[in-house]
Amino acid sequence: MAGTHLSIFRTNLSRPSTSPAPSSHHRSPITARVAQNLSYWDSIHSDIDSHLKKSIQIRQPTTVFEPMHHLTFSAPKTAASALCVAACELVGGVREDAIVAASAIHLVHAAAYTHDHLRLTTDRVWSDPRPEIPHLYGSNIELLTGDGIMPFAFELLAQSMDPAGKNSDELLRVIIEITRAVGAEGMVAGEGYEVEFDLLNSQPARRLHGCGAACGAILGGGNEEEIGRLKRCGEYVGKIQGLLSQMDKVEGGKLELVEKWRGLALKELEYFDSRKIEQISTIFGV
Amino acid sequence: MAGTHLSIFRTNLSRPSTSPAPSSHHRSPITARVAQNLSYWDSIHSDIDSHLKKSIQIRQPTTVFEPMHHLTFSAPKTAASALCVAACELVGGVREDAIVAASAIHLVHAAAYTHDHLRLTTDRVWSDPRPEIPHLYGSNIELLTGDGIMPFAFELLAQSMDPAGKNSDELLRVIIEITRAVGAEGMVAGEGYEVEFDLLNSQPARRLHGCGAACGAILGGGNEEEIGRLKRCGEYVGKIQGLLSQMDKVEGGKLELVEKWRGLALKELEYFDSRKIEQISTIFGV
Repeated sequence: MAGTHLSIFRTNLSRPSTSPAPSSHHRSPITARVAQNLSYWDSIHSDIDSHLKKSIQIRQPTTVFEPMHHLTFSAPKTAASALCVAACELVGGVREDAIVAASAIHLVHAAAYTHDHLRLTTDRVWSDPRPEIPHLYGSNIELLTGDGIMPFAFELLAQSMDPAGKNSDELLRVIIEITRAVGAEGMVAGEGYEVEFDLLNSQPARRLHGCGAACGAILGGGNEEEIGRLKRCGEYVGKIQGLLSQMDKVEGGKLELVEKWRGLALKELEYFDSRKIEQISTIFGV
Repeated sequence: MAGTHLSIFRTNLSRPSTSPAPSSHHRSPITARVAQNLSYWDSIHSDIDSHLKKSIQIRQPTTVFEPMHHLTFSAPKTAASALCVAACELVGGVREDAIVAASAIHLVHAAAYTHDHLRLTTDRVWSDPRPEIPHLYGSNIELLTGDGIMPFAFELLAQSMDPAGKNSDELLRVIIEITRAVGAEGMVAGEGYEVEFDLLNSQPARRLHGCGAACGAILGGGNEEEIGRLKRCGEYVGKIQGLLSQMDKVEGGKLELVEKWRGLALKELEYFDSRKIEQISTIFGV
């Protein structure tokens, strides 16, 4: 049980994006780094970081690109992006197939995170109060930068279109997945929670994890069964993280729920070749 | 000169979306309504309204969809959407080809308009101070709803994918056009303006008009030359509107600039069959 808790937290929440990654962005092309003493998830996050750093270079005018860079990389990493890559690799795709979508998912997450911490004139009522974070910029810049990061995510995706149009349908499907996770539907998502709760807790964490896994499976060439199972598996990861992040302390009843969801997620993975699920299963401390 | 000014204003800025459209949304399929005593531009705006009303129905939970509906339709209409339809029809497409993209352009405009009028804890410094608008909702709801409307625009577009994938490449190209107009590039756009000015005036009006015309030309099956010319024509419309909206009173120097841009825009249209440009030219009071 403690293993589950720790494993998910270690991978996804506790390490800010700005912590020095093991200089992976100096290397290319992208390759699995397991042999280089990085864990599977660290190697994925490192590759996403590298891709984002190439995509958002600080250039003129720095008044726009510097805040965009800062707010993208100061948002905590999300397992939703990593699941995108892991799901792609599980269904037989290569990391390159999923890295743009994984980066786009980090971007929409970073935009939501930025707006989640925006200081507004009206107080917000969080059921889970947001900790105060350092604000390098004024609210106006934070607002506009979040508004710029969100469409940039879709621009990156659409731009990754194959010149011969081979992946266009998959890209549109991925765009639909992401827009549904972060748009109006994402705002009302959630099971067993009050609608008002979800509206106020705009960060679409629970939906975004299922979305990430589904996008990776789509881009890796998975069939509908594989896409559906990985999406549900990702949703359980999101639900587990959501529940754990709201616990002031470990409570028996909630940990039972976590354990139940963990079992259901692993059940979805059983559909796949047992040798292939080894890496993705480590997110559950298996 | 006065004709130019009036024509552009009458068509694009002065009529709020909530004003009763001539009950056009009861009719379908979409057809040109010129014969029904609606002007060309009114008929386009009416069709976009109808499409949006079908797309954003107020449903449960109303805490999400009611503000989304309100903020979408209370944003002033933009000529950027209308140009999308007009450009499509000019290059030989039918209105149905462009109506989803035109609606998506209204949505990103409405999201920007909502966030432009958001009350933040830090004062904004507008070179052109925003008039206070009525706020039905708190800042938090306005923030989140704007954040929901933006991806919804891309969802609508991606969903309009032909089942056989025939229009996928065009849709991705349209998504790129829109994301560039409203994203980081859009934020720094503008000619002859200070960067800081553009950053603070986030509403990407000037870029969005060129984008709208380009998207319509792409979806109507225009060739690269046609797409380029219509995009530039739309950019001039946006620049003219931007300049006119900032004038406290009519000034000679600025009106000369307007007249120059108007001439350049009409020059772009000369490339097309003179009979076909009759309707789109009316935006310049011709």
